[in-house]
Amino acid sequence: MAKQDRAIRTRRMILLAAAKVFEERGYQAATISEILAEAGVTKGALYFHFKSKDDLALGVLDEQDSHFVVPDRACKMQEIVDAVMLHAYRLQTNPMVRASVRLAMDQKAADLDRSGPFLRWSNVIQQLLEGAQARGELLSHITPARTADVFVGSFAGIQSMSQTISDYEDLMGRVSDLLRHLLPSVAQPSVIASLHMSGSRGAVVHEEVERLQEHDPSALAVG
Amino acid sequence: MAKQDRAIRTRRMILLAAAKVFEERGYQAATISEILAEAGVTKGALYFHFKSKDDLALGVLDEQDSHFVVPDRACKMQEIVDAVMLHAYRLQTNPMVRASVRLAMDQKAADLDRSGPFLRWSNVIQQLLEGAQARGELLSHITPARTADVFVGSFAGIQSMSQTISDYEDLMGRVSDLLRHLLPSVAQPSVIASLHMSGSRGAVVHEEVERLQEHDPSALAVG
Repeated sequence: MAKQDRAIRTRRMILLAAAKVFEERGYQAATISEILAEAGVTKGALYFHFKSKDDLALGVLDEQDSHFVVPDRACKMQEIVDAVMLHAYRLQTNPMVRASVRLAMDQKAADLDRSGPFLRWSNVIQQLLEGAQARGELLSHITPARTADVFVGSFAGIQSMSQTISDYEDLMGRVSDLLRHLLPSVAQPSVIASLHMSGSRGAVVHEEVERLQEHDPSALAVG
Repeated sequence: MAKQDRAIRTRRMILLAAAKVFEERGYQAATISEILAEAGVTKGALYFHFKSKDDLALGVLDEQDSHFVVPDRACKMQEIVDAVMLHAYRLQTNPMVRASVRLAMDQKAADLDRSGPFLRWSNVIQQLLEGAQARGELLSHITPARTADVFVGSFAGIQSMSQTISDYEDLMGRVSDLLRHLLPSVAQPSVIASLHMSGSRGAVVHEEVERLQEHDPSALAVG
């Protein structure tokens, strides 16, 4: 294994350990010693990659969206639906994404800047909405930046409600309901009629992304 | 002061202290000793009102909606808008409501049942939607229970995003944006056209409720 690959793997192991400890203990209570013990790496290795607990938390926060990709579609609104459904699917199945979202929603981590995921997700959705607007898919009065914030904020709450009530079991149904309430205020009726947004959409898109990443990475738009 | 009044006041002081400690330390890290010190009451007084830390937390969670009232309106959709705007206003101005909402959103308080506020708010909104439906204010396909869940979940996330990005300074604008995106999928256009939902609506309704509670409590519908 090349030196660089090893460094990437070590960084990943440390982040996974940090995510686990933040999730179990909360950001405030978690300590670097606990993260070291969980990761099973040396203090030197940890400090080579991360300067502080804050730095580790920002690394975990990055994980929910930094590798975010969605397949290109003729209809840009479908890309937005796919992005939302894929994120919901990853929340259900990927412990790292789950830990990152919980950390972003930790209103008690007062000294940690948790705005990153909100702002980056809003930026991704805004760009997709601008693409949809350029293609005439949106209603005429829409301001992409404000609509993007509504999508991101409301999704954050829907996932939190689903986690609280059913530990994410009812997440897909709740996300479908949210989209059915938001889209008629945003997109042209003919566009909405063409959208795929059933509960299984997230899993379908996830498999498609995995396949494309292996065989045809150029077909993936980086968010 | 009558014995009962004194008991109510003591209970309230303990809840305020608990809210403050949960807010500062997080639910998991908070201890009953800290709450005792903050409240300045005896151990006996605390245990007379609350059996455990869990019990204290449920008391704080109750506070965000148990005294919830909104003035009667001819248009039921206006009552829903008023309920949402009033809650946003109380979040900005009332430390107890703020602490209660943060505790409900604390995804790390794993052993605490935080579903209460979600379910009770959803129930309040569902009842108002059923009233609106009976008056013909809603679009024909609406299922009040599912739409209520979308309102409650999305509001929870919008407030969290506002707290994270601006410490609630931009809350009213974000809540207005959310309502403008949800209402067209729920209510008849002629109903929406009649609604008051500017950023100052929460403060206006709050003053009205205070006035009515003093002079004409029967005009307030308990949620």
